[in-house]
Amino acid sequence: MAKNLITRKEDYSQWYNDLIIKADMAETSAVRGCMVIKPYGYAIWESMQSALDKMFKDTGHVNAYFPLFIPKSFFSKEANHVEGFAKECAVVTHYRLKNDEGGKGIVVDPEAKLEEELIVRPTSETIIWDTYRKWIQSYRDLPLLINQWANVVRWEMRTRLFLRTAEFLWQEGHTAHATQEEAEAEAKRMLEVYADFAENFMAIPVHKGVKSANERFAGAVNTYCIEALMQDGKALQAGTSHFLGQNFAKAFDVKFLSKENKQEYVWATSWGVSTRLIGALVMTHSDDNGLVLPPKLAPFQVVIVPIYRTPEEMQATVAKAHELKTLLSRVGIRVKVDDRDTQKPGFKFAEHEFKGVPIRLAIGPRDLENNTVELARRDTLTKENTSAEGIEMKILDLLDEIQKSLFDKALKFREESTRVAANYDEFKEILENKGGFVLAHWDGTPETEQKIKEETKATIRLIPLDYEEKAETGTCIYSGKPSKGLVYFAKAY
Amino acid sequence: MAKNLITRKEDYSQWYNDLIIKADMAETSAVRGCMVIKPYGYAIWESMQSALDKMFKDTGHVNAYFPLFIPKSFFSKEANHVEGFAKECAVVTHYRLKNDEGGKGIVVDPEAKLEEELIVRPTSETIIWDTYRKWIQSYRDLPLLINQWANVVRWEMRTRLFLRTAEFLWQEGHTAHATQEEAEAEAKRMLEVYADFAENFMAIPVHKGVKSANERFAGAVNTYCIEALMQDGKALQAGTSHFLGQNFAKAFDVKFLSKENKQEYVWATSWGVSTRLIGALVMTHSDDNGLVLPPKLAPFQVVIVPIYRTPEEMQATVAKAHELKTLLSRVGIRVKVDDRDTQKPGFKFAEHEFKGVPIRLAIGPRDLENNTVELARRDTLTKENTSAEGIEMKILDLLDEIQKSLFDKALKFREESTRVAANYDEFKEILENKGGFVLAHWDGTPETEQKIKEETKATIRLIPLDYEEKAETGTCIYSGKPSKGLVYFAKAY
Repeated sequence: MAKNLITRKEDYSQWYNDLIIKADMAETSAVRGCMVIKPYGYAIWESMQSALDKMFKDTGHVNAYFPLFIPKSFFSKEANHVEGFAKECAVVTHYRLKNDEGGKGIVVDPEAKLEEELIVRPTSETIIWDTYRKWIQSYRDLPLLINQWANVVRWEMRTRLFLRTAEFLWQEGHTAHATQEEAEAEAKRMLEVYADFAENFMAIPVHKGVKSANERFAGAVNTYCIEALMQDGKALQAGTSHFLGQNFAKAFDVKFLSKENKQEYVWATSWGVSTRLIGALVMTHSDDNGLVLPPKLAPFQVVIVPIYRTPEEMQATVAKAHELKTLLSRVGIRVKVDDRDTQKPGFKFAEHEFKGVPIRLAIGPRDLENNTVELARRDTLTKENTSAEGIEMKILDLLDEIQKSLFDKALKFREESTRVAANYDEFKEILENKGGFVLAHWDGTPETEQKIKEETKATIRLIPLDYEEKAETGTCIYSGKPSKGLVYFAKAY
Repeated sequence: MAKNLITRKEDYSQWYNDLIIKADMAETSAVRGCMVIKPYGYAIWESMQSALDKMFKDTGHVNAYFPLFIPKSFFSKEANHVEGFAKECAVVTHYRLKNDEGGKGIVVDPEAKLEEELIVRPTSETIIWDTYRKWIQSYRDLPLLINQWANVVRWEMRTRLFLRTAEFLWQEGHTAHATQEEAEAEAKRMLEVYADFAENFMAIPVHKGVKSANERFAGAVNTYCIEALMQDGKALQAGTSHFLGQNFAKAFDVKFLSKENKQEYVWATSWGVSTRLIGALVMTHSDDNGLVLPPKLAPFQVVIVPIYRTPEEMQATVAKAHELKTLLSRVGIRVKVDDRDTQKPGFKFAEHEFKGVPIRLAIGPRDLENNTVELARRDTLTKENTSAEGIEMKILDLLDEIQKSLFDKALKFREESTRVAANYDEFKEILENKGGFVLAHWDGTPETEQKIKEETKATIRLIPLDYEEKAETGTCIYSGKPSKGLVYFAKAY
């Protein structure tokens, strides 16, 4: 079945693309690089948003909204930021169209040229720090703990649904603090929030660490990140949290009067995750039969399919299905009854399996007599007959079990796919034949990292947070120079 | 107090602008016509979104996301639509910037010119119907009931915070149906949803009706609308729902195979409300002392202020405040404890009054002894001492009462501000001296409506839904020709 899905082994990349399309999650649009997020894909994003938004608010953040457009000159104000972000972007140059005098539809009105071009935001540090200048005068105005849910545009040349698109949806937190310590603590706290979300909602184990200078956010002093491992052995950066130092405060002249009555520059962080997480979710758990979704993020956790031949049986099983739905909804389970009479049960089973609904219940006439249901688990593809009595508590437990089981499976895979390379030959051999994370000694220089990247396509995904404390010194696999500790390398999305 | 707010009587327009700024709801940005929605304003939008989203889902709709950009040529496909929307808009012409060779920062790279310009969506009918062509083959694919939460851009020349901005946030529903009847029913159902939301959440009474041809959405067959009356006697269109006929299906060639096995064009609706509603909310209920928010949409429904002199009193009153908060939160009330020790109670009282928190509780040392609280109502500015015993149920009731009272007050004002004009002199006199809605006979022609607009600035806000049934025939106040019934005129935002 499985809608003729190619297997992961045959072609992982094709498997991913086909799965996204065939599971009705997203598709390409008429606009180069921009995707349409279809209702099923968007429902997963809504689940993610809802969980993350609560976590942000529980840690004291509030939401706000800043303009889509950024004046071009803003990008030049922070020297590193402009190199990273102001290049491949959508530029608005005009504000009016007019009818073509030759009758060929509509054309850009040359008289409506903007004095200064506007950039469609690729990220909002510049416009936000330009605004914060007006909001911050004294230490009493700090900290500012603000998040924005928004669309951003980066003119990527090679795009893939969810993983890399010209336009994508994300959240970007932008906080302002009176001290360096507080800002650094905030950047680390949000890294913990992201890791918590990845592991406990997405069921994706992640490594937490800090980026090397080469991989750092343009304008940051330090970029913290969580990195996950996909089933093809490639790493995926799932979220980043930046300690920005006073870089943006200096670029936009944001000072405050401290408790000690001194004018000081404000300290900053920013942090974000995007619809890319949906790609990570799919690539971590799904299989050759289609999507596998962790219960906490699945749009529907349970689907109920009535089985019948006669109109009487239809009436009775559909009624029972809705009765069960009420029962399950009452304890907070997201349930759908699939009572379409235009499709056969076999078709429905295949569809819900393909779309990764964690639990499927089927109810036939015999079940009505015996007060039973057939219960099928998507992750293990196992089936059992079970009593309908107290089914809601059983399903609550089972959803927890599935959530945990997906995490454990992914964790096991990651642990098995993490290897230490004693030297460069071993390093290359692992990358070529096995993939996964490779722990290796590195001399700490951008030059060595760059060379290794050019020769193997692997980058330093992260330097562990306890790198310095551990002090596992050694010798760089590439240069032979001293190394302060093992870092994680991998090929990455 | 009231932060030196100008009164409504002195200058209504200034009062509105100052209130929005001083209540920390929004401000203008560095980008012409684009606003920054500050956390307090955005929290109201989140309340609105949450209520509306539930109403949309309860009526069978799902969310999705379509691209921000629309190819220019798409706008030319629907003849009326292009006139209405493809003119004042943001046009993306390039996709790259580069360092200026003369060292003057960054400039647009002339080599990165798009083959076809992209328009930042002013509304999404075109890109969505281009997508629906791929989604709809047979009657089994219908209806499609989809909504999108998004930002849109219309290059307005004269902007006002929330009421008219170049970029704004909104939702746009886009549905596809097999029959005309079903599409018309959908357009009317969503009008009812909007009216329900306006009256029961925003506490704003609205008239429901249909727009005259002059005021119709560009590309619609019929535009249904809800219209509210602001305190200065001007009307405000609070939501629209369009029956689009087969216009977009024909423009984008969207056909389906009917049950009768015939290829037919699909029928469509679209409907939307925006952050403009926040402007309507402010202009309907607020007063010379600041914001007045209906409890159902207020970010905080109750604020608790501890009153103390000594550290011991502080500890005791703050503890009691948090105890009360727990009690109120448990029954679903949104509560904040204002325990800032940097501000005095008087300052806090003024601030929460200005920001429209519906109920304020104050707890002093005497209250601790007597188990009482001081309860102040924002809408009536009344205060009372009341027992803390069972306070949560009392406040639940009071919040309902305030919600109802705000609606009743607005309804009374609207009824008093609605007048019938027997002839054109009366019509002009009412508009000039009293404002409000004016019911008058109209001959049904766009020409007459246009003349009246030019001479009085009043437009037809709506033709009542029961206009034809009522058959209150008469004589047009302007042309003297026959009229089929009374329509609502007003000057409008």
